Amino acid sequence: MKELSRLMKQMEFIKEIDKLKYIQRKTKLFNSDRHENDAEHSWHLAMMVMVLSEYANAPIDTLKVLKMVLLHDIVEIDAGDTFLYDTTKNHSNTDEELIAAHRIFGILPEDMTKDFIEIWIEFENGETNDAKFAKAIDRLEPILQNLSNQGGTWTEFNVPFDIVYQKIDKIKDGSSFLWDHIDELIQEFRDQA
Amino acid sequence: MKELSRLMKQMEFIKEIDKLKYIQRKTKLFNSDRHENDAEHSWHLAMMVMVLSEYANAPIDTLKVLKMVLLHDIVEIDAGDTFLYDTTKNHSNTDEELIAAHRIFGILPEDMTKDFIEIWIEFENGETNDAKFAKAIDRLEPILQNLSNQGGTWTEFNVPFDIVYQKIDKIKDGSSFLWDHIDELIQEFRDQA
Repeated sequence: MKELSRLMKQMEFIKEIDKLKYIQRKTKLFNSDRHENDAEHSWHLAMMVMVLSEYANAPIDTLKVLKMVLLHDIVEIDAGDTFLYDTTKNHSNTDEELIAAHRIFGILPEDMTKDFIEIWIEFENGETNDAKFAKAIDRLEPILQNLSNQGGTWTEFNVPFDIVYQKIDKIKDGSSFLWDHIDELIQEFRDQA
Repeated sequence: MKELSRLMKQMEFIKEIDKLKYIQRKTKLFNSDRHENDAEHSWHLAMMVMVLSEYANAPIDTLKVLKMVLLHDIVEIDAGDTFLYDTTKNHSNTDEELIAAHRIFGILPEDMTKDFIEIWIEFENGETNDAKFAKAIDRLEPILQNLSNQGGTWTEFNVPFDIVYQKIDKIKDGSSFLWDHIDELIQEFRDQA
């Protein structure tokens, strides 16, 4: 049923999410001083899913994982970026983010609101194979950026490596192959530092 | 077969495409003076595909269309952004872009190079249902941005509306429903100008 009121809601959502391009992350682009924004980050994760999905521990639904990484940070339009190594705020599934999800995905027609919130919650919970892999990719990108930037946020905010490891070892749950490789790269970086 | 040399190529590609975040488009963000870059643009198109796919004229493979919009501009890392209304350079499938596709997608393992180039060429040719819808979405985003920015690039570069219509009526081939809506929005804008 092609209704104009349905399309109006979809168009309103498309405009609203433009704001993700203004949400600045702590991490910087590869070999760069320029901060990354959430829209760029989400695009990069989607490309990484296309390229690296063969390394998932368990078979994944690529379309679902792409949707997860494309929309996972939209809540930050209201809730702001939370730094992974922030010791005072727990990143996952804060009340603020849940309210944001309901407001922003709530702009869409009801069936889509439900669908998008479900995908976002599945990602946040990180329990399914799809969510585990999506989260692994979300962790992986800033590590590669930090390694290309002399430690990047690890160095800038003096994050001890045991804390780094606590935060990133979820990569293992999504892909033990990628984890082994990343672990090796971080060890090399530490040895050189 | 999980080989390290294969992963190295994939990681190299992931780093290389970070450069898309520096490729600035002529169009600006919604209600904004800030230019959009190609990575942000590609992310926004992917979200629009998720939200608007129900309006495709013919059934589409959403995963394929997502891949198309995510990678369609990567060639611009080498070839640069071509302005849709540029009268001296034809946007589609220039030699420069083809060389860029072979260089950049060529960083990947051979099977993936082949796959990515095929997807990109399918998009560029615009003949399949998937490519027609992907191109419609690619045309749609800057129109919405221009309408929110007092005409945006149309006004800035004095593009006559008959030229605008020549360039955007491909939207019809992907979605006549979206085309009818956009046509109405542009007429309204012209009447007010």
